[in-house]
Amino acid sequence: MADQAYVTLATNDNYAKGAMVLGRSLRNHNTTKQLVVLIGPHVAEPCRAMLSSIYDEVCVVDILDSRDTVHLALMKRPDLGVTFTKLHCWTLTHYTKCVFMDADTLVLSNIDELFEREELSAAPDPGWPDCFNSGVFVFKPSNETYRSLMTHCTENGSFDGGDQGVLNSFFNTWSTADISKHLPFIYNLSSIAIYTYLPAFKQYGHEAKVVHFLGKVKPWNYSYDTQTGKVKGHTMTPGSGDLHPDFLVQWWNLYSSGVLPALRDSYG
Amino acid sequence: MADQAYVTLATNDNYAKGAMVLGRSLRNHNTTKQLVVLIGPHVAEPCRAMLSSIYDEVCVVDILDSRDTVHLALMKRPDLGVTFTKLHCWTLTHYTKCVFMDADTLVLSNIDELFEREELSAAPDPGWPDCFNSGVFVFKPSNETYRSLMTHCTENGSFDGGDQGVLNSFFNTWSTADISKHLPFIYNLSSIAIYTYLPAFKQYGHEAKVVHFLGKVKPWNYSYDTQTGKVKGHTMTPGSGDLHPDFLVQWWNLYSSGVLPALRDSYG
Ligand SMILES: O=c1ccn([C@@H]2O[C@H](COP(=O)(O)OP(=O)(O)O)[C@@H](O)[C@H]2O)c(=O)[nH]1
Ligand SMILES: O=c1ccn([C@@H]2O[C@H](COP(=O)(O)OP(=O)(O)O)[C@@H](O)[C@H]2O)c(=O)[nH]1
Ligand SMILES: [Mn+2]
Ligand SMILES: [Mn+2]
Repeated sequence: MADQAYVTLATNDNYAKGAMVLGRSLRNHNTTKQLVVLIGPHVAEPCRAMLSSIYDEVCVVDILDSRDTVHLALMKRPDLGVTFTKLHCWTLTHYTKCVFMDADTLVLSNIDELFEREELSAAPDPGWPDCFNSGVFVFKPSNETYRSLMTHCTENGSFDGGDQGVLNSFFNTWSTADISKHLPFIYNLSSIAIYTYLPAFKQYGHEAKVVHFLGKVKPWNYSYDTQTGKVKGHTMTPGSGDLHPDFLVQWWNLYSSGVLPALRDSYG
Repeated sequence: MADQAYVTLATNDNYAKGAMVLGRSLRNHNTTKQLVVLIGPHVAEPCRAMLSSIYDEVCVVDILDSRDTVHLALMKRPDLGVTFTKLHCWTLTHYTKCVFMDADTLVLSNIDELFEREELSAAPDPGWPDCFNSGVFVFKPSNETYRSLMTHCTENGSFDGGDQGVLNSFFNTWSTADISKHLPFIYNLSSIAIYTYLPAFKQYGHEAKVVHFLGKVKPWNYSYDTQTGKVKGHTMTPGSGDLHPDFLVQWWNLYSSGVLPALRDSYG
């Protein structure tokens, strides 16, 4: 459907790699929705070209350059730069419904059924499970909601310094109001959860539909041996802060087969 | 109300200490409900006496000695000993509704409003938040449910080896069916969650109503200096596996003032 889209964000070339893999993974699982990537003005030309080949829409969002209200808001809260950029997705009003996905997510099967959900649907955050994790969420673009979000953000800041804090205090009935707005955790399986409660991962992990490489270390921070198909710089002994080896290998397989060759071509 | 009760479990003298503190914390916050503790046959006499002074009912549950079905079930699954004992709470059919609380929980304010909820209400487990944590849950005693649970347990085992696995696979619509069965996380705030998402704890932690000292190290594994009011053997530098220093001190304050003096008297 042309009025529904997946949306992601990449303000730099590293996150752009994530967006490429995410977009490919959505295509590989035959999504019927539009794919949109919001990029920052500093994303390099070859990356933009690559993104254009995967995504239906590549929108440069330079929030410093945007309408007065936002600019003003940002001047008051310079710490919330990327957060403001992410909230920008609400301005995509040529779509009636969207699913936002962090650039550090990877899709493992078709998830178009998410578009049956209403705003704001999201999966619980492991850690503080009465908060939703803002790496995957269903929303309805609206300039009015966008303005309210900006005001809220400027007046209250973010309790965690990022978009997750803002969105949770704005959509603050998520944990109590409507179970249908709770996406199953398998739509936003963060690697951090795996080792906290390993028996549950063993029981339910095979049903994972979206993996989220949440945290400081991202897949693109590792390197990959195309000969052996192994990820380097990874200890492979699961522990705190490590990404799950299987999912990491899946990310790299897709990157090295579906992204890297074309990217090399375009860098010449 | 005489037909509603808080229920806990202690199979040995260490968990009995936890049960004493839990019971005292419920009394201090003026609960109007009955207090029941299930104990194992090996809990020492002075501990039983102490528990009797706090709880309305002290029930010795020797599941090896109980009705044939349970005994038989247990023979097939000797690994599920304590799990079977916990499920025993469903047989307290002289109550119409109960709240089970692990012996390693501590109540920080009156929580009698939990009795407005229906079976099975529980808070999400940080780690795998589509599972509920079985440290605090609302249930309705029923011999029929008890038998079904036993059968389920014997036939399917427990994916985590404990009661949480069994209860989650038995009450398997918890995450999708009814938001009113999701207790707010502040009714079962596990210390593990605090450091995983510290900004959320800073934002919402002051509303905590029940702390759960989940994990290997329990409050009674530390020691306490009654002169200084400080807990010893605790690094006080928050990190993985550490219990939160404030909550730990609260547990010890209550233990040393409300439990230890009487316990010393009765040990002579
Ligand atoms: O410098 C940045 C940081 C973040 N992001 C976007 O914001 C999302 C959220 O940040 P991140 O995934 O790093 O946070 P985490 O999920 O680890 O909390 C990313 O996935 C990107 O889509 C970005 O484009 N540039
Ligand atoms: O040897 C044991 C182990 C557990 N329990 C009871 O079972 C509950 C669950 O165990 P625990 O709290 O140790 O598990 P955790 O919450 O750390 O997963 C305890 O709080 C006690 O009420 C017990 O009586 N004896
Ligand atoms: Mn992310
Ligand atoms: Mn416990």
